Amino acid sequence: MHLVHVQHKLREQVDEAGGANRERFRAAGVHVINLMSAPGSGKTTLLERTLAWAAGRWRVAVIEGDIQGDADAARLAPFGFPVRQINTHGACHLDPRQVALAAAELELESLDLLLIENVGNLVCPAEFDLGEEERVMLLSVAEGHDKPAKYPLMFSTADLLLLTKWDLLPLTDFDAGIARRAVQALNPHLEVLELSCRSGLGLDAWLHWLDHRLEHGRLNRLGQAHSHPHGEA
Amino acid sequence: MHLVHVQHKLREQVDEAGGANRERFRAAGVHVINLMSAPGSGKTTLLERTLAWAAGRWRVAVIEGDIQGDADAARLAPFGFPVRQINTHGACHLDPRQVALAAAELELESLDLLLIENVGNLVCPAEFDLGEEERVMLLSVAEGHDKPAKYPLMFSTADLLLLTKWDLLPLTDFDAGIARRAVQALNPHLEVLELSCRSGLGLDAWLHWLDHRLEHGRLNRLGQAHSHPHGEA
Repeated sequence: MHLVHVQHKLREQVDEAGGANRERFRAAGVHVINLMSAPGSGKTTLLERTLAWAAGRWRVAVIEGDIQGDADAARLAPFGFPVRQINTHGACHLDPRQVALAAAELELESLDLLLIENVGNLVCPAEFDLGEEERVMLLSVAEGHDKPAKYPLMFSTADLLLLTKWDLLPLTDFDAGIARRAVQALNPHLEVLELSCRSGLGLDAWLHWLDHRLEHGRLNRLGQAHSHPHGEA
Repeated sequence: MHLVHVQHKLREQVDEAGGANRERFRAAGVHVINLMSAPGSGKTTLLERTLAWAAGRWRVAVIEGDIQGDADAARLAPFGFPVRQINTHGACHLDPRQVALAAAELELESLDLLLIENVGNLVCPAEFDLGEEERVMLLSVAEGHDKPAKYPLMFSTADLLLLTKWDLLPLTDFDAGIARRAVQALNPHLEVLELSCRSGLGLDAWLHWLDHRLEHGRLNRLGQAHSHPHGEA
């Protein structure tokens, strides 16, 4: 019983850190997205395409989560946006306290968008609130249509699902109908987009989805500035 | 400090359970393989091909690990071998104590091979000794050649690496040279085979690898029976 109590308290501290991050991000007016998937579903490639599009449009920063190394941060550095690398040193997910430390090195008030790439893992990252506004998850068609039924939590808590590597579809047994029905049963509000960063299919739809959110945030900030003309809102 | 101590004790109990499983498996003369990979690398499809080949040759059983559901066990049931499903109910890896319970339902002494399919996760399962004799891991070429450097533990502890979905290679950026060099740096003794369950490429090499081990185990048992003609060895 004592162990359970201590674990419960530790877990509360983690959850509180996620909530504190969210307050901090909202106060700064930065839209935060937690990008999650199994290893190799294409998160970093999606970030490359997204940063290339965002240049000159939106002010973006990236927090990269990896067990070790900075290979992904190195891939994203050439786009000219701030990139912070978190190494979890064996841990299978990002912790909101790690995100708070990385975010403290960024000028949040000068950002429109903060993209957090979680550790590649279809299970554990979904259990941890990093303070994000939205969760975007990726499922590569090479992984199979049975994944929503077998790994339900991430699908249940995501706001957008990208079915990636769509160009591989003809060479797989992936049945998009089965995947969509399984996802619908878990999370009726989950939007689903088909995407191939290789062929470019669906990239417009993803960027439009993102642009819409950032434009909405910008209008909100303008509205706040208007109603508090002398404030810092 | 107290929490660390309690966690350390709990972890010791888990490790002891893995060791106890190994003693039990060896005493029964059954060769046990722990099959690990990220989600969707093709573990269950490999098991389908393996069971189809084993029928009439070797006495096999399978323990299926999944967070929830029995879809994989249902796929394997038609091959006529015993299949036991473990549901981890949210946990991201198999625990040796779960394996001990599932194995207790099997007649281990009448088996040549026990295949344990772990939860699809490239991180956590590698930390837990289930009592297996060997670890076979899968990496699909669709996941990318950067995975050994980013998720080193499983590659470091595996005995055989299968590079799966090899038929997709021409449609990916997977560089087998980079993957092999990264793996070699982590684990110089790791054998690597290229495999496509779809095209059949490399299936013979995998089955030969497996057959060799089982034949070796059979000869060992015959040798023990010869040197202890009245014993049960």
